[in-house]
Amino acid sequence: MIHGLDMDTLFNPKSAAVIGASDRMGTWGYGIIRRLASNGRAVYAVNNREERVMGLKTYRSILDITESVDFAVICISAGQVPLVMRQCIKKGVKAALVVSGGMSEAGEDGARVEREVVKLAREGGLRFIGPNSMGHLNTSVNFSTMAWMRIVPSGPIGFVSQSGTYGQRFVRNGLEAGVGFSKCVSSGNEADLHLEDYLEYLGDGPETKLIALYIEGLREGRRFFDLARKITREKPIVVMKSGRTGAGARAARSHTAALVGDDSVLSAVFKQCGVIRVEEEDEFFDVAFALLHMPLPRGRKVAIVTEGGGIGVVASDACERAGLQLARLAPETLAALDLLLPPRWSRGNPVDMTDVITAGKVVTFDCLSAVMKDKNVDAVMLIGGLGAAAYFRLLMEVSTDNPEAKRLVDALDAQESKGLESFRRRVARTGKPLVVSRLMPKSPASPPVFEELQGQGIPVYPTPERASKVLSYLAWYGEYLARYASLDGQPPQEVSLNPGRTNDV
Amino acid sequence: MIHGLDMDTLFNPKSAAVIGASDRMGTWGYGIIRRLASNGRAVYAVNNREERVMGLKTYRSILDITESVDFAVICISAGQVPLVMRQCIKKGVKAALVVSGGMSEAGEDGARVEREVVKLAREGGLRFIGPNSMGHLNTSVNFSTMAWMRIVPSGPIGFVSQSGTYGQRFVRNGLEAGVGFSKCVSSGNEADLHLEDYLEYLGDGPETKLIALYIEGLREGRRFFDLARKITREKPIVVMKSGRTGAGARAARSHTAALVGDDSVLSAVFKQCGVIRVEEEDEFFDVAFALLHMPLPRGRKVAIVTEGGGIGVVASDACERAGLQLARLAPETLAALDLLLPPRWSRGNPVDMTDVITAGKVVTFDCLSAVMKDKNVDAVMLIGGLGAAAYFRLLMEVSTDNPEAKRLVDALDAQESKGLESFRRRVARTGKPLVVSRLMPKSPASPPVFEELQGQGIPVYPTPERASKVLSYLAWYGEYLARYASLDGQPPQEVSLNPGRTNDV
Repeated sequence: MIHGLDMDTLFNPKSAAVIGASDRMGTWGYGIIRRLASNGRAVYAVNNREERVMGLKTYRSILDITESVDFAVICISAGQVPLVMRQCIKKGVKAALVVSGGMSEAGEDGARVEREVVKLAREGGLRFIGPNSMGHLNTSVNFSTMAWMRIVPSGPIGFVSQSGTYGQRFVRNGLEAGVGFSKCVSSGNEADLHLEDYLEYLGDGPETKLIALYIEGLREGRRFFDLARKITREKPIVVMKSGRTGAGARAARSHTAALVGDDSVLSAVFKQCGVIRVEEEDEFFDVAFALLHMPLPRGRKVAIVTEGGGIGVVASDACERAGLQLARLAPETLAALDLLLPPRWSRGNPVDMTDVITAGKVVTFDCLSAVMKDKNVDAVMLIGGLGAAAYFRLLMEVSTDNPEAKRLVDALDAQESKGLESFRRRVARTGKPLVVSRLMPKSPASPPVFEELQGQGIPVYPTPERASKVLSYLAWYGEYLARYASLDGQPPQEVSLNPGRTNDV
Repeated sequence: MIHGLDMDTLFNPKSAAVIGASDRMGTWGYGIIRRLASNGRAVYAVNNREERVMGLKTYRSILDITESVDFAVICISAGQVPLVMRQCIKKGVKAALVVSGGMSEAGEDGARVEREVVKLAREGGLRFIGPNSMGHLNTSVNFSTMAWMRIVPSGPIGFVSQSGTYGQRFVRNGLEAGVGFSKCVSSGNEADLHLEDYLEYLGDGPETKLIALYIEGLREGRRFFDLARKITREKPIVVMKSGRTGAGARAARSHTAALVGDDSVLSAVFKQCGVIRVEEEDEFFDVAFALLHMPLPRGRKVAIVTEGGGIGVVASDACERAGLQLARLAPETLAALDLLLPPRWSRGNPVDMTDVITAGKVVTFDCLSAVMKDKNVDAVMLIGGLGAAAYFRLLMEVSTDNPEAKRLVDALDAQESKGLESFRRRVARTGKPLVVSRLMPKSPASPPVFEELQGQGIPVYPTPERASKVLSYLAWYGEYLARYASLDGQPPQEVSLNPGRTNDV
């Protein structure tokens, strides 16, 4: 119960009415009734001009529906919303989604309507998402009002976005990154329910293992802080906040009428309550994927195992710039690597493997195991080294007509797939995070092994810069949990993860 | 002539011998003879163990070849290189590529061999690339010793890399970014010829319009400065330099034995001679593509035209963080936009188009034209707004069974393709740069219009962050040229570009 509302009425209603349901393509009412009707629950179309919508009988008003309705979607023009809101309250609707725009984000006239709607809803005991929202969803019960997203795979991430279209972009990015969602909300203008309400709800739900937020501004800073401080001990919160600069803040104001607040104050708030604030969009799911599948490092000392020397230099720079250190490898580790690598290997960190394939055998897994065992190493980054080693695959590219080359690469591929099975378990046993960067950019000819790694929960990134950033966020979060624990004398709870198990996306 | 060497002997030799040519897959001698033999010039295989290589008769030594040889590739183990170098000199070879590793990058033994080889070559009047090089190429004459790259498209970029494998990655990134190359060199340990020599050569060649460098360290800082200062007045130089941090510098030392030098000094050098130093790998070809196809902005005032409000906020932040300003739109521009956009549009910058499609017409091109004409605007960023507008395409995704949706989207696609033809010319006439960011991440279902834009020389990036960075580099380079011009009283030459013409990639 949040503000007296059982949030399940919003995220898993028994019946739903769509006010403004339509057969006219391109309208919100068209998209939303189609999404809802495929959910397998009672859905009523309200439209006072069309006789039938999507084959359903229409009602001129929600009051004409004889059955009870606990949830309504309102997608009509702004000026009509107060009247419809009155009717919803009269009908006994407890929760609504207001899609209609042209409210406070559009100027003083809209703001006046918005205030009226809030007043009516408060008096009538109805709580709502929006206005100016692009919908919400709950994958566990196949419920969605996100008109424009056909399939959102279920998974452990709960996501709240203060932007509709940009939120949609994030969900699509998540799909590309191989993660899935438990619940999503486009919170719109937040005239009634705030981001903080959804945060509390997601914090409680066991199917949400990680909370992702796109924020333009907070309406309840103190409440956010208290909630986040509690939640981050059990599940990570990853935030991208825009409106950091003067230009961004002005743009945010006219977008969702967000109260942006002082960005540096918010930044300090995030730090104090263990919220991971990423700087750029790509980092959002980069770090989310790693948090879901990898343990946190116990420190900042990284070992780099690389197929290429130059990219090892770039990775070293990237680690140091991200606030990490290059680990000094123990003598036993160097000795173990001596047995695997050619005599002229660099004998240091980065471990430049030089010849990844020695006597027909891929040495990468063994090099990684040696390095991960090292007491001086907190986290490991692998660059390339798989995919039958770029070297041999490229050879095949050059000699496309050479069946011997194809046989060789196929044999190496098979060897790697076999090695991979036991490798994931070995990684899990070390209790240390492993991240991977590709050596060559992804292309249609890229080897499948990197997708296989990702499928096993080992994060794969396109560049060592992005891999370094992820390790740095993980290290920071580990330090936060440790510090928090030492402050109040309680051990930090383990970040909830399912290492070894593939995400069901 | 550089150091008395006609560089064409390296980049367009009449005849070539490969010492260490082999039929053993996976060896350098295997890959290189196959690349060279497809070049259509006289090629000789030298191997003292195999009778025939790739169907060619082999020679036990280069001295056994009766015809004259002007260029040799040496790909044998390090210890044998001095003997072979003597033979090459005796044969009258003027230029060589030394692929062999295990030289100075591998420790003192290797360094001794490398010094001996340099001494022999100097005395014998032979100049060479490497050792520890991964080859070079010249697309205009179909010449390549880059064993592991099958096809490199020709184009305006000259590229020198101080890393072999990472250089290869860059070339592949360039392919993805839609650019092509005139000449490429993997400079290896630079025991004889230095990066500065290649820079001078590329600076002179008319087929190279832009020079791209991956640098770990400079051996001739002063010469680099003098060359770059001259070259950047005519063609842009884009640099990615690693070894910026202590960790990176140490890694670079053991990689190509580079003298890294003080990074902050080099950074200042780059600034003073107009070299664009990018910070991350992605930016390398992002900025190269824009420099090749777009004019430089006359200032830092940017207008953003966007299909989504939230991403407009993110773009505003990104612009300010990149040192750009949001332009204040002129009253005439606002009036022109009033006629195109719905009444509740934000009436400011970013221009949030809200409804991209009004009465079946895509308004994006007209909005862009209005904004590009504005005197207060130096550069424009478009976010989404094309591809039958994400909105309608998503509608089709939702209603896959709806032929009406398909007809609608096809009609909008056709309208956009038609608009695109005249649009490129209109952009060129404004003399201002336009950059585009996608609204939704690229996927197999992405609309083709963004590839069409890219094909017409309008840069398209995956995020507004990357688009902002590019505009910022362009603005900096424009300021450099203007300042340089004012200092010595000469007008800066126009950056050589071919706007409107698609790169022949």
